[in-house]
Amino acid sequence: MRFKQIFIILTTVIAGQFCLAQTNPSAVVEDFKPSATTQQGRLYPQVNSEGRVRVSIPAANAQKVQLDIGGVKYDLKKDEKGVWTGESAPQVEGFHYYQLNVDGASVPDPGSLYFYGASRWGSAIEIPAPDQEFYAIKDVPHGLVSQKLYFSKVTNSWRRCFVYTPAEYDANTSKRYPVLYLQHGSGEDETGWPVQGKANLILDNLIAASKAVPMIIVMDNGYANRASQTPPQAGAATARGAGGMSAFEDVVIKEIIPMIDASYRTIADRDHRAMAGLSMGANQTITITMNHLDKFSYIAGFSGTSNYPRTDAIDPEVFMNGRFKDGAVLNKQIKLFWLGLGTKEPAPFPGSVAAFRAMLEKQGVKYTYYESQGTAHEWLTWRRDLYQFAALLFK
Amino acid sequence: MRFKQIFIILTTVIAGQFCLAQTNPSAVVEDFKPSATTQQGRLYPQVNSEGRVRVSIPAANAQKVQLDIGGVKYDLKKDEKGVWTGESAPQVEGFHYYQLNVDGASVPDPGSLYFYGASRWGSAIEIPAPDQEFYAIKDVPHGLVSQKLYFSKVTNSWRRCFVYTPAEYDANTSKRYPVLYLQHGSGEDETGWPVQGKANLILDNLIAASKAVPMIIVMDNGYANRASQTPPQAGAATARGAGGMSAFEDVVIKEIIPMIDASYRTIADRDHRAMAGLSMGANQTITITMNHLDKFSYIAGFSGTSNYPRTDAIDPEVFMNGRFKDGAVLNKQIKLFWLGLGTKEPAPFPGSVAAFRAMLEKQGVKYTYYESQGTAHEWLTWRRDLYQFAALLFK
Repeated sequence: MRFKQIFIILTTVIAGQFCLAQTNPSAVVEDFKPSATTQQGRLYPQVNSEGRVRVSIPAANAQKVQLDIGGVKYDLKKDEKGVWTGESAPQVEGFHYYQLNVDGASVPDPGSLYFYGASRWGSAIEIPAPDQEFYAIKDVPHGLVSQKLYFSKVTNSWRRCFVYTPAEYDANTSKRYPVLYLQHGSGEDETGWPVQGKANLILDNLIAASKAVPMIIVMDNGYANRASQTPPQAGAATARGAGGMSAFEDVVIKEIIPMIDASYRTIADRDHRAMAGLSMGANQTITITMNHLDKFSYIAGFSGTSNYPRTDAIDPEVFMNGRFKDGAVLNKQIKLFWLGLGTKEPAPFPGSVAAFRAMLEKQGVKYTYYESQGTAHEWLTWRRDLYQFAALLFK
Repeated sequence: MRFKQIFIILTTVIAGQFCLAQTNPSAVVEDFKPSATTQQGRLYPQVNSEGRVRVSIPAANAQKVQLDIGGVKYDLKKDEKGVWTGESAPQVEGFHYYQLNVDGASVPDPGSLYFYGASRWGSAIEIPAPDQEFYAIKDVPHGLVSQKLYFSKVTNSWRRCFVYTPAEYDANTSKRYPVLYLQHGSGEDETGWPVQGKANLILDNLIAASKAVPMIIVMDNGYANRASQTPPQAGAATARGAGGMSAFEDVVIKEIIPMIDASYRTIADRDHRAMAGLSMGANQTITITMNHLDKFSYIAGFSGTSNYPRTDAIDPEVFMNGRFKDGAVLNKQIKLFWLGLGTKEPAPFPGSVAAFRAMLEKQGVKYTYYESQGTAHEWLTWRRDLYQFAALLFK
């Protein structure tokens, strides 16, 4: 939850500057089109070439209707038919959650598709990116995304993961595959990567172009509470993460990995197992993989590190129980340590990732650093991370 | 679209009678609980033992907030904190789409999960049924539900289907399986059966109890437009179905079945291929299977028949080009012809299905008729249909 709160506060400040700049309606470029996240058959929400989001909703008796995006609320205007329409300031390219506000009620836009993020199912908009081809659906062989249900003894609950198998998987019934465990961020769930993350399409395109080796990707829910903990109460969404790190670590190590190795044709060793995650999932990935280097040899943190939210210098003697003390040993064990960050991400991410990188450099730990140009703490950054990172895996 | 309009009109009349009866708030039983379709961490929507739906939403500046369910709008009341709360008359057990209305804006309930139905993504509520165990998640082996993307030359578009494979499928790599093609209704899509229809859990439970043979289930989108047709325009949702029947028939026969037989371990003959559908999907099923009895031997219409919406006597000489003329021949070809209906379904379904049954009986065509007690034109009826029908397949 902390990630999201800090993000909202900071983007309010940033977007507020855009907002002040948008005083002349004639400056709005009138080339709006329905978005990739607009429901089929609906005209709105729309996006224009500037990245402005335009919404429209009938609300004949409302006094005030607003578009709430990036932490800024934009007033809509009512026409003679009682339809409220208006647009935001230009948004950074990529994927953004938003909502409407009708006389004080914060609600999803009835015209948009819905996604899980910001700890709720709600509206989101896709601002087209110049490089959108890498995650577009193309005339290439497509893998499957399968929903797998399993009972977790650690949490005493039914859980769900999504598993990507490459297009060739069901034809090559004797071939075994390496596995990438891929985690979402705070306030998101296991639907993040297969839906807004477009992990399947990214891998389909990479594999078809021979830029990545065929691999299995497992996308699970990063929230876990031990069976012995008080279960989260309705209305207490923040309780979902309580005590979650060590419980989730046990779910991954004791339950998910053995289950995947038993039910899919995996190559079940550390040389063929990777873990990556974004934001909260990056923190989880670094913690879990560094605690279990016998099980992983590829590690990636997209827009997050395990010192989050701190930005001060890291003391490797005490940080994470000294896991980073011996760079030479780590360099022999870790085939690839990847860190990524968007250039428009808010604090504390730049500072936090910088402090982590400085620690790695001080310790002589080799790592690859990727900067996503012009993107924020959102899914375009993470799609690019996956595209770049997956191309380097298991080679 | 016609199905839905008629349904809304009729339920308005029916539910209006309940509404008039509910004049005394003290009559409401105060045992409300969050529904199976309430978002995790939210308190509302709730359901009580009478089947009333209670919603609650902060809207400090609104003048009027309503719950819109079953074609009836129920006024909510505002408390001193600006939170609007209220409940509906008792609803029939099962799965119902609904929305909120805030000063004239029809919007999803921010507290509910979202489903595709009524030609839009929006809110729905589950009124618990006494027999809900048959579609509950249980400690039994669970099959996978896989998302398969494919390019359709018939429609010149990318399409998606969901494929259920039984729990044993990936362990028995030389065994082949029969296939049920299972279709949704008007205003719904390929997510209907795997999400609100709970087709996977129903089959998991049936197979674990040895009540059904392990089978593959393919759930596709019943809307199709030929590539030569003008594609549907944004804002013209009703155009989706234009010319759809023959296009969808070609998609099923020329594209989906060959694709499934090529990519899954199917038994690719008529003895091991079934088709079933609900409402519009029932109409499609009867039309497609009767046109292709070389490919199907099991046929089921849930809450629908191919004479819809007519309720007058059917002349088998002309109906569907005389496909039902020779009952004796059909009885040799069709292993099971199943029809189902809920006892609380609105017109024209009871009359339309009755006319179809009368025609079958007149022609001496054997069929099995199932009545779902106390359920409407909604998913509880269809879950029960699937549970009963699947148990009879491929035996």
